[in-house]
Amino acid sequence: MKYRIFSLFYIAIVFVTQMAAEDGSHLWLRLPANAHAEISAPRQSPTLNIAVEELQQAWKGAPVRLVIQKDKQLQAEGFRIRHEDNKITLTSPTETGLLYAAYHLLRMQETGQNVVEAQTTENPAYNLRILNHWDNMDRTVERGYAGQSLWNWEELPNTLSDRYKEYARANASIGINGTVLNNVNASPKILSAEYLQKVKALADIFRPYGLRVYLSVNFASPMALDSLSTADPLDKEVIRWWKNKVKEIYRIIPDFGGFLVKANSEGQPGPCDFGRTHAEGANMLADALKPYKGIVMWRAFVYSPSDADRAKQAYLEFEPLDGQFRNNVIVQVKNGPIDFQPREPYSPLFGAMQHTPLMAEFQVTQEYLGHSNHLAYLAPMWKEFFEFVAPASLKAVAGVANIGTDANWCGHTFAQANWYAFGRLAWQPSLSSGNIADEWLKQTFGSQPSDINAQLKKMMLDSHEAVVNYMMPLGLHHIFAWGHHYGPEPWCSIPGARPDWLPSYYHRADKQGIGFDRSSKGSNAVAQYPETLAKQYDNIDTCPEEYLLWFHHVPWSHRMKSGRSLWDELCHHYDNGVRQVRDFQKIWDAAEKYIDAERFHEVQSKLKIQARDAVWWKDACLLYFQEFSGMPIPYEIERPIHELKDLQKVHLPISNYECPTKELLNKNR
Amino acid sequence: MKYRIFSLFYIAIVFVTQMAAEDGSHLWLRLPANAHAEISAPRQSPTLNIAVEELQQAWKGAPVRLVIQKDKQLQAEGFRIRHEDNKITLTSPTETGLLYAAYHLLRMQETGQNVVEAQTTENPAYNLRILNHWDNMDRTVERGYAGQSLWNWEELPNTLSDRYKEYARANASIGINGTVLNNVNASPKILSAEYLQKVKALADIFRPYGLRVYLSVNFASPMALDSLSTADPLDKEVIRWWKNKVKEIYRIIPDFGGFLVKANSEGQPGPCDFGRTHAEGANMLADALKPYKGIVMWRAFVYSPSDADRAKQAYLEFEPLDGQFRNNVIVQVKNGPIDFQPREPYSPLFGAMQHTPLMAEFQVTQEYLGHSNHLAYLAPMWKEFFEFVAPASLKAVAGVANIGTDANWCGHTFAQANWYAFGRLAWQPSLSSGNIADEWLKQTFGSQPSDINAQLKKMMLDSHEAVVNYMMPLGLHHIFAWGHHYGPEPWCSIPGARPDWLPSYYHRADKQGIGFDRSSKGSNAVAQYPETLAKQYDNIDTCPEEYLLWFHHVPWSHRMKSGRSLWDELCHHYDNGVRQVRDFQKIWDAAEKYIDAERFHEVQSKLKIQARDAVWWKDACLLYFQEFSGMPIPYEIERPIHELKDLQKVHLPISNYECPTKELLNKNR
Repeated sequence: MKYRIFSLFYIAIVFVTQMAAEDGSHLWLRLPANAHAEISAPRQSPTLNIAVEELQQAWKGAPVRLVIQKDKQLQAEGFRIRHEDNKITLTSPTETGLLYAAYHLLRMQETGQNVVEAQTTENPAYNLRILNHWDNMDRTVERGYAGQSLWNWEELPNTLSDRYKEYARANASIGINGTVLNNVNASPKILSAEYLQKVKALADIFRPYGLRVYLSVNFASPMALDSLSTADPLDKEVIRWWKNKVKEIYRIIPDFGGFLVKANSEGQPGPCDFGRTHAEGANMLADALKPYKGIVMWRAFVYSPSDADRAKQAYLEFEPLDGQFRNNVIVQVKNGPIDFQPREPYSPLFGAMQHTPLMAEFQVTQEYLGHSNHLAYLAPMWKEFFEFVAPASLKAVAGVANIGTDANWCGHTFAQANWYAFGRLAWQPSLSSGNIADEWLKQTFGSQPSDINAQLKKMMLDSHEAVVNYMMPLGLHHIFAWGHHYGPEPWCSIPGARPDWLPSYYHRADKQGIGFDRSSKGSNAVAQYPETLAKQYDNIDTCPEEYLLWFHHVPWSHRMKSGRSLWDELCHHYDNGVRQVRDFQKIWDAAEKYIDAERFHEVQSKLKIQARDAVWWKDACLLYFQEFSGMPIPYEIERPIHELKDLQKVHLPISNYECPTKELLNKNR
Repeated sequence: MKYRIFSLFYIAIVFVTQMAAEDGSHLWLRLPANAHAEISAPRQSPTLNIAVEELQQAWKGAPVRLVIQKDKQLQAEGFRIRHEDNKITLTSPTETGLLYAAYHLLRMQETGQNVVEAQTTENPAYNLRILNHWDNMDRTVERGYAGQSLWNWEELPNTLSDRYKEYARANASIGINGTVLNNVNASPKILSAEYLQKVKALADIFRPYGLRVYLSVNFASPMALDSLSTADPLDKEVIRWWKNKVKEIYRIIPDFGGFLVKANSEGQPGPCDFGRTHAEGANMLADALKPYKGIVMWRAFVYSPSDADRAKQAYLEFEPLDGQFRNNVIVQVKNGPIDFQPREPYSPLFGAMQHTPLMAEFQVTQEYLGHSNHLAYLAPMWKEFFEFVAPASLKAVAGVANIGTDANWCGHTFAQANWYAFGRLAWQPSLSSGNIADEWLKQTFGSQPSDINAQLKKMMLDSHEAVVNYMMPLGLHHIFAWGHHYGPEPWCSIPGARPDWLPSYYHRADKQGIGFDRSSKGSNAVAQYPETLAKQYDNIDTCPEEYLLWFHHVPWSHRMKSGRSLWDELCHHYDNGVRQVRDFQKIWDAAEKYIDAERFHEVQSKLKIQARDAVWWKDACLLYFQEFSGMPIPYEIERPIHELKDLQKVHLPISNYECPTKELLNKNR
């Protein structure tokens, strides 16, 4: 008898332990099952069936009625939630809107918001809320740090992973309604008949979730796929080729979204190769898509090695084209003028092209923010962008996805928060970073004591600034290791490399000081900004310190607002970054008993890496820049524990990036 | 003309730079040259000539007269320094005493002590102040971390390195008057005719500096060198063999000092192999040496794998032999009962053998204290020993040398301070650690501003406790990595290894607690101490906390004097150790402009290693012991940055130790 009790007890323990084990695969959708809620819908349909099922399983409140109804206050995907007489009514003009309403209602439940007597009206800020996957056909993901590409091209279209549906569901739950499946460095193969069948298979799965499929296209596709002799956008054969290709696509995927194009950028082909402008190239594609309501997202990420200041080039090339694009073209501009640095001022193209639809490209994947090893909650960074660029001035937002085959989707549990936050902000940029963090925390980890929750939220909210501090404070940028952009390499010098791919191009450290002079005395990039800002940035005394070294070459002894010299201030920022990460570790460890063991240890382990990396960054940058400043690291600051020469020997074997000079790299190392 | 000035200027800079470059080879003897002092001596002799030359070159004060004179207040090597009428008189009964007086006078000058009107009388506390070199014939040094052995046996006796004389001079300057040239794990070869000629060459160089030569001997030498069938100390052939060998030695080296013997210890042969006692073995050698006034230093470092508590064994084996040794035998006992741990209680053999001359064996080389990477000033540790063992109860002190062929002799500039402090304390154990540190600092680095000097001194004085904190606080011991004893390996488990060579034998961590129960309820090692101490140590509530886990198996939740639980206290000690090392880094970096670049950077670099290692130790021990305590590391403490499983994979390629189970080791790893 005793024996038996022990056995049962043992089984119970095993069961509880296994239940507690969490691999993060459920993301923020850790909804209850078997709630058996009373749900009614106007009809059966793939989308409505999903909404009904989600609510039936998870909704614990009053009966819910789904109603399709036009309403002046509601956009197509907008919805209203009304609670009256112990009944809840979800209203929207569209099925997708009702699906969003269902997820919103469940979010309210899971985050502990009061639904009784509440009335909620929601409309998206943008009609297009889109993820860009930089996924290659071979399932590598450029700048991806969460395993392989979700899209198993070899198995498609016959074998369909469960993950495809889960992916669509997660996106729907936060309002993302578009996905560009493949890398902007696009293989022409994606437009082949064979691959379009694979794309169709995904589109069919995504459709009920309101998620449209888009493709990145290679501008030279007509030459690569059908041996045309040119890809000149004004060539009749080329125009016909694209018309036919678009027709073929829409025959297979009637709600296909359109094209994303990286042209004449970092070695990609484009209209300029044939003496045409970006507008001429984009318009040709737009004309082909127009009959089907398809769009072109044309990237403005261009820069040439010969120019004096890379930060100015997108503006210089695109601003003159303002007004020349078709109305189904959206020019897609990265948030900052360089390339997703830990902190950049906003790109001056925003606001400069009044007659062209623009969209912002954010990077959800942490190419320059510690990959999937560092905890960096990016909502505050994106919100910073919206402080300068009015949300209403944009047509859409895109986010470069951080998603892969890892069990937890994003490599780092907290990287899920960036996918989540991107979706939420794309829906409504006025949401606060704190509220989004709060939503995500509660849905992802369940309810914790309020002090624990407050600490975790604080950790998230401080995390981006911490990364800026230990990587590139005060406006420093692009002093990353060559190619993979993970660790510090401010000294990087590769003979024969493009100067604008080398850190010294950006930091310009010398005996006098540090920083890129983009003032009116330097490259005059400041002049691309509206006059008030231009004036502010141009003056070393009024330029915000977080952008100081972006816009100025500043003497080491320059007096900062703190009263410290620039050098001392720089040291303190790096040191603060290290201490912030150590604080995150304390916060996380203190939450141990409220988090399941698996995710707890995964994050704990990542924070250890981040803590080590922060010291690595600090030591590398301070020891290197000290060779120029010649000043001591303030003695109250924790001392370096590395030798510069050892850090200069670090070369990590990270390879998921397109590097046109990989051979050069191998030759020189 | 301009060109020429620049050239000269350039030459001057190069010269100054080269002058400033310091490799540490001058140790604490950075005396002025060309002082042209007026010195008189009673006669010419090798020893007096050295004294006169040293003073002539370096003494900047009044004329000095050297006088040989017996004096009731002066022992053979004692001396008096008297300053009268602007003349200084050095008096001693011996030439060596006058040489010591000369170095003492120069030390006073270099450390800024007032010589005018001062009268100093100095007598050594011990007649024998001896270094033990664990140097092998192949020039490896067991537990040596400063290059190869100084003794170039292959070149000897024909080629004589300058270093031999410099070595003797350095020893004379701090009063060391004996040196055992070879490892206690002794090769019989050292007693061969060929090698005795080599030994003679060294003895001839050392003699004028008052430095006598001793040798470690292998007890089985008669069998190994001359094919005797036994080494039984009561065997007539054996007795005759040793008599002849000793005679041969003294014919070559008339002032030969005697033998050091490691017998029946860690695989070495000894009298017990033939059914004889340690006393019988030692006495046989002592009888052979007696006619020449030679001595035997017989080590009490014995322990067998079968016993229940290694800490008790030297006592158990030697205490019963009290009174049985000849009067020219000194039993050499390590300071603690185990083996040179960062902190040990004193060995209870001291005080227990009232009828046997005893000497203490200290370890100057940092086998268990971070090798030559960690700054650990050991005077406070040795002074701690003398708090329990009255200096007058000892006959002599020996120090296991930390000297090798490295340019700076000891591998770490601050390790020189341990050689220095050993000599000074062997001369006079009542000197304070602080004064010795002060002397060494001023002689080694010249005069610094007093606040810098005070900080450096503080760093030295705190350094041993810091190492204890981050390695083995609260009485923990021997949780080092297998074999080389550098890093942490509390988990070390090697199938087939002697249990008393494994850390778990010492820490005994389990779910209940940690520590070795040597109380009366455990191994009762406490009973080997005098009654008062035995009572104090036996009681968990009165046992000093620095020895707590040495004497008790203590529950994790045991309340410490701080009010913390044992676990929390342990965590705080490890954390304190880390923070102390970081403070040392700050102190050292702040001294940069007062230290020559070469030594500054060498020490700075070592401190970086120490800072990283301290975190390594802390993380390894806390993460490992946490598996037993099951308690969180207090959340106010800096979190681990390593994974236990990664640390458990660390195996360093350090090989300068005798490991009878090296093959076992290789098999199992």
